[in-house]
Amino acid sequence: MTNHHEIEVYVRFSETDALGHVNNVSYLIYFEEARTKFFDEACGDKELAKHFISAAVTCDYLSQAYAAQTLKIETSVSRLGTKSFTVEHLLTEKETGRKLAKGTAVLVSFDYINQKTTSIPSELRSRLESKLVSG
Amino acid sequence: MTNHHEIEVYVRFSETDALGHVNNVSYLIYFEEARTKFFDEACGDKELAKHFISAAVTCDYLSQAYAAQTLKIETSVSRLGTKSFTVEHLLTEKETGRKLAKGTAVLVSFDYINQKTTSIPSELRSRLESKLVSG
Amino acid sequence: MTNHHEIEVYVRFSETDALGHVNNVSYLIYFEEARTKFFDEACGDKELAKHFISAAVTCDYLSQAYAAQTLKIETSVSRLGTKSFTVEHLLTEKETGRKLAKGTAVLVSFDYINQKTTSIPSELRSRLESKLVSG
Amino acid sequence: MTNHHEIEVYVRFSETDALGHVNNVSYLIYFEEARTKFFDEACGDKELAKHFISAAVTCDYLSQAYAAQTLKIETSVSRLGTKSFTVEHLLTEKETGRKLAKGTAVLVSFDYINQKTTSIPSELRSRLESKLVSG
Repeated sequence: MTNHHEIEVYVRFSETDALGHVNNVSYLIYFEEARTKFFDEACGDKELAKHFISAAVTCDYLSQAYAAQTLKIETSVSRLGTKSFTVEHLLTEKETGRKLAKGTAVLVSFDYINQKTTSIPSELRSRLESKLVSG
Repeated sequence: MTNHHEIEVYVRFSETDALGHVNNVSYLIYFEEARTKFFDEACGDKELAKHFISAAVTCDYLSQAYAAQTLKIETSVSRLGTKSFTVEHLLTEKETGRKLAKGTAVLVSFDYINQKTTSIPSELRSRLESKLVSG
Repeated sequence: MTNHHEIEVYVRFSETDALGHVNNVSYLIYFEEARTKFFDEACGDKELAKHFISAAVTCDYLSQAYAAQTLKIETSVSRLGTKSFTVEHLLTEKETGRKLAKGTAVLVSFDYINQKTTSIPSELRSRLESKLVSG
Repeated sequence: MTNHHEIEVYVRFSETDALGHVNNVSYLIYFEEARTKFFDEACGDKELAKHFISAAVTCDYLSQAYAAQTLKIETSVSRLGTKSFTVEHLLTEKETGRKLAKGTAVLVSFDYINQKTTSIPSELRSRLESKLVSG
């Protein structure tokens, strides 16, 4: 429970589409915001996002969202490897708690200068470990 | 002063570009969020954005913004006509107050069912009038 | 082979991010364009996207892409159910053929008026069947 | 006439909004694509966009656009100064020629390393001059 990091997002008009609801791609934008804030607030490093590269993302759509709604995203670490880790996101409507989507992202520790994968630095590793949610 | 409506936005990584700063288009996304929240919070109508159509927007870029910054947008009404009105936006960096951009938007009262312009409804007109900033 | 539908996309500057490469979310935008064009060109219905709702998307990132590149997306149908089907996308760099990403999307036949899932209409079903790629 | 650079863009579903039409911000995305392709194709430098910074943009909305339409953008240089120049964009619906929007952008020659404005390099200056549309 305390291992979950939480943010709120406001649904912008530009994030909806002609079907009247939030466009499927916008959910991935919300999840990326959740990850960078998780890095910043939970790991204490605003620049942390710059040490990782996305290896995979998934999103399961459970219910539609609409313009001007306030949404809630809970983020946690579900797997921690040597070079990569997996985060899970749960998106809900703030007012009702209705589940809107579930997402995952696999992030790989990456050296952008030399363009190669690296081991997750040990200090960051311990911080991520403390956020790990046991199955 | 009290006529200014204020919101904060967090700069998402997806809103930056390969030049390392916030992409020029993202500022317009922030301004649209400021307008819909202004409609919602200052005029008491979450659906208000649906009664207007954009006639024109401008943005003057004053300084660069970066990922993970918190920005502040002040919005006010600078002109109120029969069928349209103009809002002005000032975007600053929250922490330092540094001015990042100024923007305007001309919004026209629009009947999307019949696809034609209309006069601004009188009740909304009075609310917008109370937000008008005199030159 | 002939069952694959192909489009090209140009990488916009606004689709890159401060890490100098194409933002991870942009790949999902490209895949959505590939699906709507597949619907339009392969199934002969420009409005077809409006009869489906996204149930799930995935993206595996294989290599980075950069501003001003021309990318190629191959789209095919990998599963066809009663109410839903799955499409697969392969994103490559046009000039070199380098693989950039693989994606999938599960689309459910949906009645937006009554807000409920429906069976895939039989005529459309036959068209999708002809695009089905056997494992 | 020959001084106008022309591109086509396809309207993505993610670029529309809940009002059923193309979101006002998307027009600015189209104009940015037109500018980078103008730089690439007309000036022969794919990286040219990286030597300029946006000082101002405007967009006048003339008519609505919709998902899956093909649009045409004509771009020309309307002013050429020592450190900056202005481009003009005309956005039309390809099939009908209907005018959808007019836009402008002021671009300033910028040294991102030293973070200061510079004079437009003379070789590029001559190329832009040849694209200048006389009033």
